Amino acid sequence: MDSTTLFDISYGVYVVSSKKGKKYNGQIANAVIQVTSDPPKILVCLSKNNLTHKYIQQSKLFSVSILEKETPFKFIGIFGFRSGRDLDKFKEISHKTTDRGTPYVTENTLGYLECELTETLDVGTHTIFVGKLVEAEKLKQGEPLTYAIYHEVKKGKTPKNAPTYVKPKKTETKEK
Amino acid sequence: MDSTTLFDISYGVYVVSSKKGKKYNGQIANAVIQVTSDPPKILVCLSKNNLTHKYIQQSKLFSVSILEKETPFKFIGIFGFRSGRDLDKFKEISHKTTDRGTPYVTENTLGYLECELTETLDVGTHTIFVGKLVEAEKLKQGEPLTYAIYHEVKKGKTPKNAPTYVKPKKTETKEK
Repeated sequence: MDSTTLFDISYGVYVVSSKKGKKYNGQIANAVIQVTSDPPKILVCLSKNNLTHKYIQQSKLFSVSILEKETPFKFIGIFGFRSGRDLDKFKEISHKTTDRGTPYVTENTLGYLECELTETLDVGTHTIFVGKLVEAEKLKQGEPLTYAIYHEVKKGKTPKNAPTYVKPKKTETKEK
Repeated sequence: MDSTTLFDISYGVYVVSSKKGKKYNGQIANAVIQVTSDPPKILVCLSKNNLTHKYIQQSKLFSVSILEKETPFKFIGIFGFRSGRDLDKFKEISHKTTDRGTPYVTENTLGYLECELTETLDVGTHTIFVGKLVEAEKLKQGEPLTYAIYHEVKKGKTPKNAPTYVKPKKTETKEK
């Protein structure tokens, strides 16, 4: 079995956000797709370890901010490699909230989608959240950031909790 | 609500295939993602109207053939706009079967993934099938076909049963 075949699956790069009361959190996600058109429903797949996962379970609301091709590394670092348990990710990032109070990112963002949770599926280490589209707005024209650009052009890494994480090859040296 | 925001979600283009005994069928799908890495699991989202949907429910097996950028329109037409109820789609298409008997396409294909069904989620008009990766092979080097290339460069259309289908705007003339 050649697991590198998985690398040819195409993805975009997004910030999936949710809230707990007035607390906001968001995280980078690549596993985001539309699953029905009538009504429009969006699927996101998040690690059970992540704070955004917990917030979606509680608030039943999530947003997807679609990142633009030019999104800088530093921005991705904040949402992709830091935990909302340690810092307020939205503190220094331009954002707004929807009428329902869901936060979404407004910088480096082509547009956002807001969804009300309709279905949930446990797939092991991750949960699939499906939500009905309740708000959608385009913020700017441009090309979306793809996972291929992030990896090949920007030489970006994949965080451990991503569905597409690949374990580094084992060496003879045992960890102590 | 501006539904055109949905157009900035990124996808690849795939042939999802399954079988019923010795009968094979496959269809174009864009809603294909990896959802976990330990173990690797793949998600596909298919319309309940489609024959491949029925075959996956019965055989509990499916394959994903990852199409290359150069895939011609005619090929996509066979798998995307025709029903396996009317023709044997694999008749004139190069294909092989896995050890488990699942068909996969070998022309215009960068590689294929074979999955055993582990979870199913009903999301309305479509079903989400999640399967554990049991086979994966790279067939050639190249760039994958993306939905953006299919639409913008190739001016391809979206079939009615796709999760990303957009209804043509209503006119005053009623259909009879």
